[in-house]
Amino acid sequence: MDLTEIKDPSFLKTMSNEELEQLAADIRQFLIEKLSVTGGHLGANLGVVELTLALHKYFDSPKDKFIFDVGHQSYIHKILTGRSQQFDTLRQYKGLCGFPKMRESEHDVWETGHSSTSLSAAMGMTIARDLKKENSHIVPIIGDGALTGGMALEALNHIGHEKKDIIVILNDNEMSIANNVGALHNALGRMRSAGKYHRVKDELEWLMKKIPAVGGRIAQTAERVKDSMKYFMVPGMLFEEFGFTYYGPVDGHDFSALQENMQYAKKTKGPVLIHVITQKGKGYQPAETDLKDRWHGVGPYKIDSGEKIKPVDTPPAWSEVVSGTLQQKARTDERVTVITPAMILGSKLEKFQKEFPDRLFDVGIAEQHATTMSAGLATQGMKPFLAIYSTFLQRAYDQLVHDVCRQNLNVIFGIDRAGLVGADGETHQGVFDIAFLRSIPNMVVMMPKDENECQHMVHTSVEYDDGPIALRYPRGNGLGVPMDETLTKIDIGSWETLREGNDAAILTFGTTLPMAMDASNELQAKGYSVQVVNARFIKPLDEQMLHGLMSKNIPILTIEEAVLKGGFGSSILEFAEENNYTNQPIRRMGIPDSYIEHGKVEELMEEIGLTKEKTVQNIQQMLPSKQQRA
Amino acid sequence: MDLTEIKDPSFLKTMSNEELEQLAADIRQFLIEKLSVTGGHLGANLGVVELTLALHKYFDSPKDKFIFDVGHQSYIHKILTGRSQQFDTLRQYKGLCGFPKMRESEHDVWETGHSSTSLSAAMGMTIARDLKKENSHIVPIIGDGALTGGMALEALNHIGHEKKDIIVILNDNEMSIANNVGALHNALGRMRSAGKYHRVKDELEWLMKKIPAVGGRIAQTAERVKDSMKYFMVPGMLFEEFGFTYYGPVDGHDFSALQENMQYAKKTKGPVLIHVITQKGKGYQPAETDLKDRWHGVGPYKIDSGEKIKPVDTPPAWSEVVSGTLQQKARTDERVTVITPAMILGSKLEKFQKEFPDRLFDVGIAEQHATTMSAGLATQGMKPFLAIYSTFLQRAYDQLVHDVCRQNLNVIFGIDRAGLVGADGETHQGVFDIAFLRSIPNMVVMMPKDENECQHMVHTSVEYDDGPIALRYPRGNGLGVPMDETLTKIDIGSWETLREGNDAAILTFGTTLPMAMDASNELQAKGYSVQVVNARFIKPLDEQMLHGLMSKNIPILTIEEAVLKGGFGSSILEFAEENNYTNQPIRRMGIPDSYIEHGKVEELMEEIGLTKEKTVQNIQQMLPSKQQRA
Repeated sequence: MDLTEIKDPSFLKTMSNEELEQLAADIRQFLIEKLSVTGGHLGANLGVVELTLALHKYFDSPKDKFIFDVGHQSYIHKILTGRSQQFDTLRQYKGLCGFPKMRESEHDVWETGHSSTSLSAAMGMTIARDLKKENSHIVPIIGDGALTGGMALEALNHIGHEKKDIIVILNDNEMSIANNVGALHNALGRMRSAGKYHRVKDELEWLMKKIPAVGGRIAQTAERVKDSMKYFMVPGMLFEEFGFTYYGPVDGHDFSALQENMQYAKKTKGPVLIHVITQKGKGYQPAETDLKDRWHGVGPYKIDSGEKIKPVDTPPAWSEVVSGTLQQKARTDERVTVITPAMILGSKLEKFQKEFPDRLFDVGIAEQHATTMSAGLATQGMKPFLAIYSTFLQRAYDQLVHDVCRQNLNVIFGIDRAGLVGADGETHQGVFDIAFLRSIPNMVVMMPKDENECQHMVHTSVEYDDGPIALRYPRGNGLGVPMDETLTKIDIGSWETLREGNDAAILTFGTTLPMAMDASNELQAKGYSVQVVNARFIKPLDEQMLHGLMSKNIPILTIEEAVLKGGFGSSILEFAEENNYTNQPIRRMGIPDSYIEHGKVEELMEEIGLTKEKTVQNIQQMLPSKQQRA
Repeated sequence: MDLTEIKDPSFLKTMSNEELEQLAADIRQFLIEKLSVTGGHLGANLGVVELTLALHKYFDSPKDKFIFDVGHQSYIHKILTGRSQQFDTLRQYKGLCGFPKMRESEHDVWETGHSSTSLSAAMGMTIARDLKKENSHIVPIIGDGALTGGMALEALNHIGHEKKDIIVILNDNEMSIANNVGALHNALGRMRSAGKYHRVKDELEWLMKKIPAVGGRIAQTAERVKDSMKYFMVPGMLFEEFGFTYYGPVDGHDFSALQENMQYAKKTKGPVLIHVITQKGKGYQPAETDLKDRWHGVGPYKIDSGEKIKPVDTPPAWSEVVSGTLQQKARTDERVTVITPAMILGSKLEKFQKEFPDRLFDVGIAEQHATTMSAGLATQGMKPFLAIYSTFLQRAYDQLVHDVCRQNLNVIFGIDRAGLVGADGETHQGVFDIAFLRSIPNMVVMMPKDENECQHMVHTSVEYDDGPIALRYPRGNGLGVPMDETLTKIDIGSWETLREGNDAAILTFGTTLPMAMDASNELQAKGYSVQVVNARFIKPLDEQMLHGLMSKNIPILTIEEAVLKGGFGSSILEFAEENNYTNQPIRRMGIPDSYIEHGKVEELMEEIGLTKEKTVQNIQQMLPSKQQRA
């Protein structure tokens, strides 16, 4: 059918399973075509086509509430709720969001991006429904990977305790972003292989009747055995232990099975978990056969071959430089270990894992545990390197404050995707880490100007023995600069002047340095001599250089691709205040006090005014005042 | 025996169980006497006397590593490792810490305060041990309450997956800080009542042999039944599912049982969990018989009667004012619901719970879930009030950024114990919240000057409909001011001048306002007229008042009982910068960039220079410069 004609999901109600199957095929074709141009989360969406159709057929959205965990698997939901025409703008500036978005549709009742929030959100909605005496189904849809996140487990524990009506869909595709880890995963594996719950239960009851009557202590045990049958090792035992009624495992591509179990679930009192087995990438050969989940989030590709369309001859990715240097360090330093929360692919750690399988630990989606486990390693003299995205480090804030920094332990944080991330949008922007890291005692925070400095910073962080140290680097690729052959240590807290100047100074770091250089060039042409400083240590500051600048009283402009409130620029204001430079002119550029949505990084930088033009303008505005004072 | 003679735990090795029992009695007597004077965590420690003795007898600390979760139950460990003589200084300034402290002893290998960190720390230490090919036992000791924290569950999942040798002691006293909640708790209850594992296992095997031979499909089920026996509903099934070998339940006050199970565990490969049942408050009648766990953390008390020694006629506690006002609001506003992470007692919510049992949700130690569940409630038009200590809100930083503030939901945060907390010390100081909340978009943060303003702020927060709002209040009691009968709304972002003045202005809020008033009085006597502003909104600022002050260019002093880096004072510097008040003199007082240890709040304020004297001095230092400029 023509998907662009879909306005809402009501048409599904009267469809036969055969018609649904045809629709599923049409949707897959649509997604494969659209995403070959825009890119997006192909694998996850191809896996939940039938599941999403069944949800919209057997429940009534928006009265019934679907809460997509993580949310990147909501494309079919978007198609069915009238948004297919916007798929050409998917994840583009001002275009369709890659995650659920309340503003886009009344069917989007919860926004996500980060993992493991759906069960808690669902519990809140369920309590509200019951207090308001409303009548609706609350249906969180959570993957097996997201289930290992601490918040999801906290919620599972609470939901099982409260015994309210809630229908959890466990979308089990046997991998989170890559292969899943953890005991829960193993338990799911046993469930998958165990067959259907109901049949087993009936047969068990038959068997139990055959247990002979016995006397004495053994009789008590036998009684308990019978009592315990409901907790027996039928597939969902683990969830039954948590207080859920378990249905499954269900073939997530079989409409009849989905129907049967959803209808059971709707009639069941208390919390229910439907264990649905799906295949990520289903229906697209290149994605189906890729075991390494490289089709999780993709850029444009050729449909026939699955070949990725990539710009030629790009410089190495930042994360590749980091992991490569770590690998080099690990060869001579046995203390080096790497921890990743389910991001071996994203953080480009495959080669490290191959060379040092015993020294890389993928703990699953579990940022809190990853951080405190790193602290534990550090207490024993190891040098743990925690590779973590800036936005996901937010999950471990207390572990930073309470476990790592308070004990002043040598944990290295490789903060990937620091700054604006582009298409993933507001849930993934790495713009808070400077503000929240800077106020924690004992923390060192640095950012390299290019991939060559980056490798020296990795070296510096491994050699640093005085406490926690963070190296933040952006998403994407380096600048293509030549790489030194020998690694050298950078003095902690030392900045470098990239261009001398006498009229004003720009202090910035990382991605915004080229812009500062361009602005300085332009100002040069206008007769101004503007110093550009690579303020590569965000904490501690280069106090010597700051005293030098401020005692000359030349205007200072700070630029950061991070939030202004409490950020790097504020630390320069604080320095001036602490050292009584009362009349020091300072201006700050950075990200304003609002959430920044998706789009190309250049578009977002333009939107928030992080441009060469504004830089030039800000410097010019400060300079006359200097001349007036003189 | 004379406990003050104990230098290290080696003397335990040769003791008989009878001698150990006598020692346990002596230790209980010691704790009851010492804590009757100093106060401290009596209940938890009385519960683990035998357990701690057994740990030090059957393991070899510090080679073997004990990791006390939360850590307030480490008093016996401190006695056995030579610190009994310091108990008169327990939790006092420069005295013995109430939690494990590496600096105090080589036997303290991990510092805590917050819950649920021990399993992750232990996993890190275990990995380090194996990589270094060392030979030791890693023994985390975790309570049943702490086990529901998300990080502990993440760790459980990872430990079960890695299968390394680690011995988890589950100290199950059937209550976390108060009664435990959650499905895990219920599962533990079933285990406790189920009897001993080994016996049941043997008897099951006998029973299984009696199941008749059958053919066909039923035969397959019967086979699986036999295979599954190892996962049967013996007590520890849940932990066996997670990949642990389970021993227990063990009577935690029976030395023979503890010995037997610890020796089993030491010989077992892979992760082991020993389920130890203890009684909180054991051996002290008033604590044993108190079901509400009021002996968890106590001040001084009379030993014979258990009567608490309290100052007479204190004003109401801040938390009482908050919960009382909420109760009042809830009577007329059905949207009001209260969420607490295991702190019904601490946050004084008993009366609210009694009047509105259906509208109060204790989710256990689960701050992440508590926060996002509140967000879920808010999506449905409810007004969730999350009562949470400042230091524990750190656990929910990402939930604040990603779930609450990004979606701009009407969640109210009642941030209890904001500022310095005193005896609990550095793990519990509520000094980071301003810095981390202020940089999150859409957040409103306020703090009242007294309990009367506090009740109006509770009212204001419930009536506020534009997004998240936080009300922070200190530990302890109010000022004893008269309370208005009618609740009134305070304009968001409005400050008030408590004392007029023309020479300088002090901007501060909450606990430091009286000090500012005193300083202003003293300056008055010296001929200076200093304005004192109740800057009750930390975000947003009262921009009108700031423009008024800064356009007059009078010196401004900010004071906050919170970290200086990125704090309230920095927001005033930012305001001056954003509005081009380049020559505005500003000084900031607050908490420096280091962790603040335990002691009375007054002592700590003196140490960090948050005093009237420094306030006067800072103002005086700024004033001459003003006169020079004039």
